[in-house]
Amino acid sequence: MSKKTIILISREYGSGGRIIGQKLAAALNIPFYDREIILRSCQESGYTSNLFEKANETDRHPLSYRLTMYSNAVSFQELSINDQIFLIQSKVIREMAKESCVIIGRLADYILRDDPDIIRLFIQAPIQDRIARVKEEYQDNDSNIEQKIHRIDKNRATYYNYYSNQKWGYMKNYDLVINTSKISIDDSVNMLIHLFNQKQTSNKK
Amino acid sequence: MSKKTIILISREYGSGGRIIGQKLAAALNIPFYDREIILRSCQESGYTSNLFEKANETDRHPLSYRLTMYSNAVSFQELSINDQIFLIQSKVIREMAKESCVIIGRLADYILRDDPDIIRLFIQAPIQDRIARVKEEYQDNDSNIEQKIHRIDKNRATYYNYYSNQKWGYMKNYDLVINTSKISIDDSVNMLIHLFNQKQTSNKK
Repeated sequence: MSKKTIILISREYGSGGRIIGQKLAAALNIPFYDREIILRSCQESGYTSNLFEKANETDRHPLSYRLTMYSNAVSFQELSINDQIFLIQSKVIREMAKESCVIIGRLADYILRDDPDIIRLFIQAPIQDRIARVKEEYQDNDSNIEQKIHRIDKNRATYYNYYSNQKWGYMKNYDLVINTSKISIDDSVNMLIHLFNQKQTSNKK
Repeated sequence: MSKKTIILISREYGSGGRIIGQKLAAALNIPFYDREIILRSCQESGYTSNLFEKANETDRHPLSYRLTMYSNAVSFQELSINDQIFLIQSKVIREMAKESCVIIGRLADYILRDDPDIIRLFIQAPIQDRIARVKEEYQDNDSNIEQKIHRIDKNRATYYNYYSNQKWGYMKNYDLVINTSKISIDDSVNMLIHLFNQKQTSNKK
């Protein structure tokens, strides 16, 4: 693709948003970044993996090294570990977004909000269909999958809302929302491929 | 199209939802019904135009005729004029939905909620872009267009919420939401044509 296109996907757990992102990135021949890759990128940036493993723990852990890439390293160290990770990830995401790519979650839609080349997708599906998908896709036979789905979505919303001061899953924050119970994953992917190829063509005019 | 497809479009005023519906219906070669056409159909169905003219007045006006197509005509007449119109419109919309078509607004998404062939679209755009579109599209130079847009949307929401017990513009009630500031009207139409043609193909398999 000639012009940059940054496709940012937020999704409800079990809606198929991640697989849509993977298939779309493969079809458009652009990188696909999910949360694991972002974490790995952070680690490769010179930070020990400990920092990231501790991200969800309390903030009482002291930082034992300086984050030398920040000029105001001292004040940066004074931030909580979660805040530091958020800042590091923001930096990594901004690097990734210099070229066309697909990014899943990680507040990328908020971090890149001033980039005119982003398009923000939200993938949703009714709870019953998400339960069925999680059972099948992840071979998850947890007796309380519904509760697990709600917990994961709640964690995503809490994290998102805390750092963005926006509301996760609020319709006005997305450019395209798809219900995968009505528009299948394959139909969604084909529709999106068509959209982005066509946008490229109209941008070239 | 071989299998039935009922495309229901809700939209914010000035978002371009109506023109998307018109272009899509023309491209798919299926009927396009907007609120005026639905009202006209109701009138042509044998109801006097008086009923519709009085729709926005208070309910103290007596009905001077019997609506003979309802077996329980007496109790129907006891309803308010607005309620009667809602019931008549519901009937007309259910008739329309026997064949593939595009319907704009009029609670069709709620009225047809049990029809497996419906797909519910919501077309939105940020307020500044809607103001610009209303100025250009409708040659509307009202000094307070923003207030007018909010009033029209509020009226739509009030009417919808009253009869549906659902919330107008609530993301979970839609299968596809499009922001026309990010995905242009032409790109949206082309994307939707591709989607519906492809759904036809996959349904035939």
